[in-house]
Amino acid sequence: MSILDKKIGIIGGGQLGKMMILEAKRMDPYIITLDPTEDCPSSSISNEIIVGGLKDKNKILELASKLNYETDVITYEIEHIDTETLECLEDVDYKIFPSVKSLKVIQNKYTQKQTLKEKSLLVPDFELVELIEDLEEIGKKFGYPMMLKAAKGGYDGRGNYLIKNEDDIDSAFHALDGENQLLMVEKFVDFAMEISVIATKGQDGEKVFYPVAENIHVDSQLDTTIVPARIDETVKEQAISLANDVMEVFDGVGTFCTEMFVGKDGQVYINEVAPRPHNSGHYTIDGCMSNQFENHVRAICGYPLGNTDLIKPIVMVNLLGIGETGPAELIGHEEALATIPGLKVHVYGKKESKGKRKMGHFTVTANTVEQALTLAEEARKIIRIQNQNYHLKLVK
Amino acid sequence: MSILDKKIGIIGGGQLGKMMILEAKRMDPYIITLDPTEDCPSSSISNEIIVGGLKDKNKILELASKLNYETDVITYEIEHIDTETLECLEDVDYKIFPSVKSLKVIQNKYTQKQTLKEKSLLVPDFELVELIEDLEEIGKKFGYPMMLKAAKGGYDGRGNYLIKNEDDIDSAFHALDGENQLLMVEKFVDFAMEISVIATKGQDGEKVFYPVAENIHVDSQLDTTIVPARIDETVKEQAISLANDVMEVFDGVGTFCTEMFVGKDGQVYINEVAPRPHNSGHYTIDGCMSNQFENHVRAICGYPLGNTDLIKPIVMVNLLGIGETGPAELIGHEEALATIPGLKVHVYGKKESKGKRKMGHFTVTANTVEQALTLAEEARKIIRIQNQNYHLKLVK
Repeated sequence: MSILDKKIGIIGGGQLGKMMILEAKRMDPYIITLDPTEDCPSSSISNEIIVGGLKDKNKILELASKLNYETDVITYEIEHIDTETLECLEDVDYKIFPSVKSLKVIQNKYTQKQTLKEKSLLVPDFELVELIEDLEEIGKKFGYPMMLKAAKGGYDGRGNYLIKNEDDIDSAFHALDGENQLLMVEKFVDFAMEISVIATKGQDGEKVFYPVAENIHVDSQLDTTIVPARIDETVKEQAISLANDVMEVFDGVGTFCTEMFVGKDGQVYINEVAPRPHNSGHYTIDGCMSNQFENHVRAICGYPLGNTDLIKPIVMVNLLGIGETGPAELIGHEEALATIPGLKVHVYGKKESKGKRKMGHFTVTANTVEQALTLAEEARKIIRIQNQNYHLKLVK
Repeated sequence: MSILDKKIGIIGGGQLGKMMILEAKRMDPYIITLDPTEDCPSSSISNEIIVGGLKDKNKILELASKLNYETDVITYEIEHIDTETLECLEDVDYKIFPSVKSLKVIQNKYTQKQTLKEKSLLVPDFELVELIEDLEEIGKKFGYPMMLKAAKGGYDGRGNYLIKNEDDIDSAFHALDGENQLLMVEKFVDFAMEISVIATKGQDGEKVFYPVAENIHVDSQLDTTIVPARIDETVKEQAISLANDVMEVFDGVGTFCTEMFVGKDGQVYINEVAPRPHNSGHYTIDGCMSNQFENHVRAICGYPLGNTDLIKPIVMVNLLGIGETGPAELIGHEEALATIPGLKVHVYGKKESKGKRKMGHFTVTANTVEQALTLAEEARKIIRIQNQNYHLKLVK
């Protein structure tokens, strides 16, 4: 069947969905997006939008009902979706990529880590937390600080709580609703650097890997990605090798991200796996010959994958909402575009700015990573996305 | 005002409009497209679509009525549109880029050439044809062959007629409806090569130029673009200098294309100017740091322009409809993507294939132009867009 008749159903219409569609549209399949927000980032570039929750079984079935199970395909841009309904669809031969089996294992951080550990992949030590009393025991074994995590549903540091010492145990357990939620705790890795590798696997098993990205988090949220990462060859090889193992373990078709810690001992540990394109791979849009979204679309459509070569050193900086919730406004982009060579500004189109909400990002390409970093720091001082009434409030 | 509130009205929703929108959406302005075809290539990625003719005054006014003249902007992806209505809108302070004044001069090939000649830019000799008798006179002066052209409305060789000798005059004049249409005739340039330069001018007068493209036409339609063009430095300098003059003469804000002949004498002549992104600039999407559509959008929004550097040598080949009119089908892309490194396939999303209709294009990047050309020729043998019933008909 021609791509012109092919339909792609995407669960989630945020920035990742939007960027997927912008790549898919180069070959023009028909796109149906499911998202709870009618004017979500994907809405104006989807052929159809179904407004509904990502765990709403009826809405997921409505999406499937518009697709041909033999020729069309379902994917997702977020892992916190209803896997039961998707499993049923898989049972009746709908094509869902990455597979629901891998999604189920990955969306629960405990089973994700268990699976990696069983396959002898290096992860920080971790334990399941069933009772608050377990934490004291584990604390004695792991030492402090240690990281308490909700097994499901967290992102951007939400669902994580750093336990600095025994006195924090009580507040940590209750903050993450330990009575009602499955929690796990991880030994704290005193890392020298955080890195990630974006990889894509095709339906025929072909795998491609993007250059290792160096990530800087601020308040547990990704702030800056630097490519190539400033690491030596040994670390680079470990990172790519681990990302390769991850793609094998989860047998995932599509684009995946493996986030890793480089320990001060030079060891590389897997931190988390995402079964989808990832914020730390946004640099690939302006920085690589074929980006993470293009390769995701190629993979789920069953096509061969594109070249992941880096065009130039590049730095990506997230634009997070500043200040109170309110109508979003982009500021400083004209000045920044005029003064900073190699700058590209990406705006996701979320109508409402909220403190820390991912509203957009920018990238700067240059001849060296150092140049790109210097220019990115200049751009950071100029470009903002904020509540459009924010400056007025400051004046009062 | 923030880009998030900015609206762009685009007259024409074909592949050029679609590719403009795919770039614009990176910064997420609101897009309204006017096109006669409800399911035109731009339709599924525009926020709104107005279905109507490109010369329909009411529909152009409806488009304008949805825009704020102080902050929003109108552009077009085709020059055969109603300039009278647009002039009225300009008179009441609507922002239209490129300006209606330059569009009016350019859309009439005779006034376009006159303007270039008045500014001493090198164009092939040309004359206005008022009566059929003029052609005989001009033939004596120019010699044969000579090119008869409709002054308005032609594209892809339509509206052109090559007069090989005196005996062709009668059929040429009638074929182009000389009694009712303004015609002109041009001295035939015995060219060594056809080239083009894409350039963008910002609202502050900043200009950027893309690498010179070598173009191969088949039956008067663009078939292949090769970048960098296989020309020497002198020709390259002449080409860029002429493109620069063209941007000055027409005072055009936005992306323009200047198509040129390289004569066998090494002289560069202007063939035609297009006040919009151009088919011979499609290579910039996969081949340049910022493409012709991104820079067009930046220019019309009043933003500084992006870097036009070539990433790698590249060849673009048009995918024209094959066979009878009927539902379009893309064939061979999977095989081609699997076997040809550096290949990207672009499908415009036109539902109906017609013989010679521009349905899509592909590009191949490689380390050298020669490699890219070899790979492009392989891809050409594999990829096709055609009437999906075509192969059935062949069997019968």
